[in-house]
Amino acid sequence: MEPVFPFALELPTRGQGRRTQALHRQLREAILDGRYPAGAPLPATRQVAAALGVARNTVVTAYDLLMAEGYVLPRRGATAVVADLAARRPARGTPRAPGRDATRISPSWRTAPFLGPSAPADLPPRSFRVGVPEHRHFPHDTWRRLSARSLRAWAKAPFTYPPTEGLPELREAIAQHVAFSRAVVCTRDDVIVTSGAQQAFDLLARLLVTPGETRVAVEEPGYPRLRAAFAAAGARQVPVPVDDEGLRVDRLPGDVRVVSVTPSHQSPTGVALSLSRRRALLDFARARDAVVIEDDYDGEFRFAARPLDALQTLDRDARVFYVGTFSKSLFPGVRIGFVIAPRWARDALLAIKQCSDAHCDAVAQATLAAFIRDGHLARHVRRMRPIYAERRTALLAGLRRHLADWLEPIPSEAGLHLAARVLQPEHAATLFATARHYAPGVQSITEYSLTPPEQPALSFGYGVMEAEEITSALRRWGGALARR
Amino acid sequence: MEPVFPFALELPTRGQGRRTQALHRQLREAILDGRYPAGAPLPATRQVAAALGVARNTVVTAYDLLMAEGYVLPRRGATAVVADLAARRPARGTPRAPGRDATRISPSWRTAPFLGPSAPADLPPRSFRVGVPEHRHFPHDTWRRLSARSLRAWAKAPFTYPPTEGLPELREAIAQHVAFSRAVVCTRDDVIVTSGAQQAFDLLARLLVTPGETRVAVEEPGYPRLRAAFAAAGARQVPVPVDDEGLRVDRLPGDVRVVSVTPSHQSPTGVALSLSRRRALLDFARARDAVVIEDDYDGEFRFAARPLDALQTLDRDARVFYVGTFSKSLFPGVRIGFVIAPRWARDALLAIKQCSDAHCDAVAQATLAAFIRDGHLARHVRRMRPIYAERRTALLAGLRRHLADWLEPIPSEAGLHLAARVLQPEHAATLFATARHYAPGVQSITEYSLTPPEQPALSFGYGVMEAEEITSALRRWGGALARR
Repeated sequence: MEPVFPFALELPTRGQGRRTQALHRQLREAILDGRYPAGAPLPATRQVAAALGVARNTVVTAYDLLMAEGYVLPRRGATAVVADLAARRPARGTPRAPGRDATRISPSWRTAPFLGPSAPADLPPRSFRVGVPEHRHFPHDTWRRLSARSLRAWAKAPFTYPPTEGLPELREAIAQHVAFSRAVVCTRDDVIVTSGAQQAFDLLARLLVTPGETRVAVEEPGYPRLRAAFAAAGARQVPVPVDDEGLRVDRLPGDVRVVSVTPSHQSPTGVALSLSRRRALLDFARARDAVVIEDDYDGEFRFAARPLDALQTLDRDARVFYVGTFSKSLFPGVRIGFVIAPRWARDALLAIKQCSDAHCDAVAQATLAAFIRDGHLARHVRRMRPIYAERRTALLAGLRRHLADWLEPIPSEAGLHLAARVLQPEHAATLFATARHYAPGVQSITEYSLTPPEQPALSFGYGVMEAEEITSALRRWGGALARR
Repeated sequence: MEPVFPFALELPTRGQGRRTQALHRQLREAILDGRYPAGAPLPATRQVAAALGVARNTVVTAYDLLMAEGYVLPRRGATAVVADLAARRPARGTPRAPGRDATRISPSWRTAPFLGPSAPADLPPRSFRVGVPEHRHFPHDTWRRLSARSLRAWAKAPFTYPPTEGLPELREAIAQHVAFSRAVVCTRDDVIVTSGAQQAFDLLARLLVTPGETRVAVEEPGYPRLRAAFAAAGARQVPVPVDDEGLRVDRLPGDVRVVSVTPSHQSPTGVALSLSRRRALLDFARARDAVVIEDDYDGEFRFAARPLDALQTLDRDARVFYVGTFSKSLFPGVRIGFVIAPRWARDALLAIKQCSDAHCDAVAQATLAAFIRDGHLARHVRRMRPIYAERRTALLAGLRRHLADWLEPIPSEAGLHLAARVLQPEHAATLFATARHYAPGVQSITEYSLTPPEQPALSFGYGVMEAEEITSALRRWGGALARR
């Protein structure tokens, strides 16, 4: 067998679906770790099929998946080429330190961590991109006025270094906000202000992981950048599957010391962790002396009749770290998140924050404190909830009306995105390939998975597209699929 | 011998000075690592002297030093007690996680890192505190106007996540600024925007250290928070002494892979690294395949006739990481610093930044970019230089006129602080104790030292006190000392 790729492949001897998955996964891995370099042309599908002894359609489908995910670029009238991931996603390429230079880099960082999906450069501003909120209804004038007010107050006092844990007025405002909106039990002394939720994950990983030892349960599929932070800290990660009730708590190995979970709105499937699972998770933590990281990244936007309590609210045993962020409820550029930490962990967390970056931007903190205290955050969330609800309804209706033969929505009652299962796995490649044109920004949940999922699914963000835009995009997509 | 402290002490059998030092150091360590808990009363000096078989004056001097440094609080009409460092300095206390809780914390963080001096809560706003710039001459109105302009532009575009490496316009502005002000050789693609210099240290420590292996040379005395970041990454730190020409390059062990240095203005002694030492350091790095971290935290303010080139300017071999910050040239609350990194390290550094906190505050970045591009930073530095120069002159003159019997200024030609050696070590305790009243904010360089320095010294910040205030404070202090 003549080698058609610059690395070895191992495919199962039978099963077209399994061969497609294996080929897709192995090519993706080779692209990610740099064995298959940017710009390299992909051999013709006919040639690969012959060399590997598989059906040509197996190769075509694997190529389509790679194109849909952006790992491979189609070239009009010529062969496809491996995409330059490093150029498009700075943190994703393998560090290209040559020879001796590479040995200066700590082994943890010699190969690029998997950071999951990021937006391609050519994504239109109005798209199904996951995790971006609407800017058109944000009270920009109010924010600007409060920012100017903070700067005027700032100008009157001598310069100081803000406290590591965050400005007292912001911690007070956050404590009241989460008590009111999420029934989280805390005072301002339990709040540590962080540079977004990502820094909270990094601080917690450094706090809780003994490198090479600590086993950490992560959701599968789950948020890649939380995993990246835990991988960097030397955690041994254990992927635990997610179903329609959220994390399969019954599948947690007994020796995990940390369980990370998105109970309000699973990332990326969107399901909520059921109340019985919440109780089971806290029971597990107590029985096994584990701690829980509750990542509540967009839980402000809930559409269900009855909200589920936060895990932190149910915790009687100082085991839950509640992580929040203002990237979704306000905007992604404001780099402010927070951890509500059990008392026993506070001093060590502050020491890590001190070593990491000492403190967060003082003016942004003061502005946000005033924004929350004066009721603007609550008002903005109240105003946005029906807007997002309308978009979500349009998305669900459009999926049911135009894509019912292809996709099945996964139940979800919160947040800014919704996922849908591909009904017939052999349709996945077609869906992914056409999504690039008809539903730009839509993500495959393989981008959140450590192993290829049993059932492919797509995740739709509805943060920045209006209801009519969503409806018409899905109508056009459904029409195009029906004509194939 | 009856135990007078709740832990063992080992004192040299002779030499009053050495015994004082040993007693002071061991008590300080016990306080820092929590063996001597907050609130514990210190036994009477007479009792300690008898129990340890030393002169009473030895104990009195050690106690005075601890009081001057804030580790011990005097109680009027009663015994002194161990200060509550955790309350005063959140990141400094030993994490007080009880029993089983403590085992959940990673071993790296179970005891508090040494973070060096921080300002006591009762420090007056006008003080000799090191590292704080003047707020009264800052163009607050301009900053507020540019901030509003950035927010207006921001309001017009859909929300996005800013790039991990920093906004392109800010990287462009920083590249031009350091090229002009410090002759640093770079383009915007070499700049990575960080959350202050502290984050740059943390990213570099994570990049360059293989835990438990990599030997890192740090200045002794030197900046404790850089050391804390390297300790957290698992570096084996090698303290290398500093003299009047800066780091003793001839004392670098051959096996260090990283050398961290403050060449413009040594932290804390204020000396500049001489040109011959700069060349020797780069020769060392080339010969030993080491890299250099150049921490240029306040190098914008230079008072010498001829500036010394940055190490980065002299580097022909992609070995120097240049770290800068706007905490001194602008204000500490703006959480923006930067690294100018060799190309081979860029991708890995960005991956670490991505895992750490993804990106910095977008509005602050846009505001700073406009502030630099429109010439306001250069103008502000130009305006502040003579103001700080006048204060520095007043400080030098006051030391020579009023404290010549006690202190000898250490040569320094840049920055916002100046250090002075204690001429007779037996005066150190008196100086430290009276400084609390007459020169609040003054720091002992023992706070920057891993081992007690051979010759004690004090560091005076002149960022926030006017020339006349400096003169009158030193006059009153000198008068009080003369009357003793």
